[in-house]
Amino acid sequence: MSSRIETEALVIGAGPVGLFQVFQLGLQGIACHVVDALPHVGGQCAELYADKPIYDIPGIAVCTGRELVQRLQQQMAPFKPTLHLSQLVCRLERQADGQLLVETTAGSAFIASTVFLAAGVGAFVPRQLVLDGLEDFHGTQVFAQEADPTRWKGQHLVVAGDGDAALQTCLDACKQAALGGGPASITLLHRRDQFTAQSERVALMREACAAGLMRFVPGQPTGLRRDAGRLEALELLNPQGESEWLPLDVLQTCLGLSPKLGPIAQWGLAMERKQLVVNTENFGTSEPGIFAVGDINTYPGKKKLILCGFHEATLAAFGAVALLRPAEKTLLQYTTTSTLLHKRLGV
Amino acid sequence: MSSRIETEALVIGAGPVGLFQVFQLGLQGIACHVVDALPHVGGQCAELYADKPIYDIPGIAVCTGRELVQRLQQQMAPFKPTLHLSQLVCRLERQADGQLLVETTAGSAFIASTVFLAAGVGAFVPRQLVLDGLEDFHGTQVFAQEADPTRWKGQHLVVAGDGDAALQTCLDACKQAALGGGPASITLLHRRDQFTAQSERVALMREACAAGLMRFVPGQPTGLRRDAGRLEALELLNPQGESEWLPLDVLQTCLGLSPKLGPIAQWGLAMERKQLVVNTENFGTSEPGIFAVGDINTYPGKKKLILCGFHEATLAAFGAVALLRPAEKTLLQYTTTSTLLHKRLGV
Repeated sequence: MSSRIETEALVIGAGPVGLFQVFQLGLQGIACHVVDALPHVGGQCAELYADKPIYDIPGIAVCTGRELVQRLQQQMAPFKPTLHLSQLVCRLERQADGQLLVETTAGSAFIASTVFLAAGVGAFVPRQLVLDGLEDFHGTQVFAQEADPTRWKGQHLVVAGDGDAALQTCLDACKQAALGGGPASITLLHRRDQFTAQSERVALMREACAAGLMRFVPGQPTGLRRDAGRLEALELLNPQGESEWLPLDVLQTCLGLSPKLGPIAQWGLAMERKQLVVNTENFGTSEPGIFAVGDINTYPGKKKLILCGFHEATLAAFGAVALLRPAEKTLLQYTTTSTLLHKRLGV
Repeated sequence: MSSRIETEALVIGAGPVGLFQVFQLGLQGIACHVVDALPHVGGQCAELYADKPIYDIPGIAVCTGRELVQRLQQQMAPFKPTLHLSQLVCRLERQADGQLLVETTAGSAFIASTVFLAAGVGAFVPRQLVLDGLEDFHGTQVFAQEADPTRWKGQHLVVAGDGDAALQTCLDACKQAALGGGPASITLLHRRDQFTAQSERVALMREACAAGLMRFVPGQPTGLRRDAGRLEALELLNPQGESEWLPLDVLQTCLGLSPKLGPIAQWGLAMERKQLVVNTENFGTSEPGIFAVGDINTYPGKKKLILCGFHEATLAAFGAVALLRPAEKTLLQYTTTSTLLHKRLGV
């Protein structure tokens, strides 16, 4: 049995609300661990709005998603949370003693007294190509995670997608082939000859096609052919409405990230329209010790705004301290005047 | 009849939550007027924490009260609210047509469709010296507002207080007397020979006493003597427990500011322990169209934190738009992506 990490608080989701949850728990004297599916903190803010302006964070007339995340990281820094990135929570289970067992896809296991679900619209995981039977080849011939060139050395590679990641994966493979040790062939697959990638990158891809380094095949996958447990070819419906076969050894899909609520939906917590129902007094869910803050929760009047999540995380931290230290008087203290809070903040 | 200002929204209180209320109303396309008792915006933040650090505004690791107010002013600037400062709301009354009549001590009158009470712990007004009968002389011989030297030219002046404002008022009067045109005499009155003013200022006051420019009298006012409608002297209980008389022409009290909930308590809104009870769905009070945000409200789980007020003001703005534009679809829009919000923000 791998060792389990015991913690008073586990925050699931390192988006802006999860980061502020860490800060508010820190003010309450509660140290925590944080799990996120992405390889970096910031959640949607980092993934979808990194360079886009946000105008409604109170006291910050304008900042980008990236700046907001950096500011929140700076703010929570005094509380030194332990981050567990690139992993999804795959199990949450109440133990006989009331503690919560949480396990992740990377094999981390936690025994937590309180859990804060700050998972937004879900974990951001690579979008999969949906095709009957394709799941049998995930991880052997079909990959959705970040491109790894060692997978297709000497192989017939098909890259599916129309964005910058798909085109860049093809261009990198062309370079690799030119240097020796690349794929046997490189095919970009997308349902039509139009791309969401930047125009410069589309032009480079067309040049590579013209030079015979790679090719583009338009078509929509509709089936597959297998032989002796091996994926041999994809069946495509081409833009002319005809069926054709695309042989391949390796399929790399670059279809972007998609939020996935994942097993949270199976934990038996009260839900409404895929949102966790919470008590607005402390943003607790229907399970004692499990709080839900940010876009993942719902209550009368709920607006999916970051600033509302900040409020929710704050009251959830008060809810946690009431649960974890029932004997402690929970007098409201102010960061401006409280020597206890100054000590915790290290100021 | 003086002209009345018609407005969709009136915000009472220009502290941080009131300022953010203006911003959120602006995002909803609702222009507003703002009333505050102080001569400047910022409320408690400007009055009590101007130079003190605040650590728990989300995304701002540290800022002073003054900085926070400046940031919020910058953020709400696109919405150009009309400010009505240095005046207290003295009347709030529902009209026959359902609109709300609001009047201030400066004679401003508003007909508002919605009112946002962001008055914190109340309006900051000068603390009065409490003494039976003294109120008869307010504004003629007794002053609590800012010191005005023209009031005591050639008069026997008593300044009550132990803080910087009281001592500086005496020192200024000494200078005025030295230049000619000052008071006939200057007496500082405080119950004991200990002061909260800065030690440098206390030293200057003692020097002025030693030089015979002014005097300090310790004592607690317990009564007064009047003659022909004129205040003649205060009766004091001195530290020795004896009674003595202090003759005077003018009494300037410098006892600091004190929050005063004022007539809000008399408007018939549902209250609990001097706080307005609100519905956490939209932070409406028991009266339709009257919202309460920030320290003035209460609900289960309420914490008197600025960041909670920001959330409350946001949901209150949504509550207002639902009331003011019932036909409009209230789809949540994001400042990052909404062209409508960009237009309103002028970006």
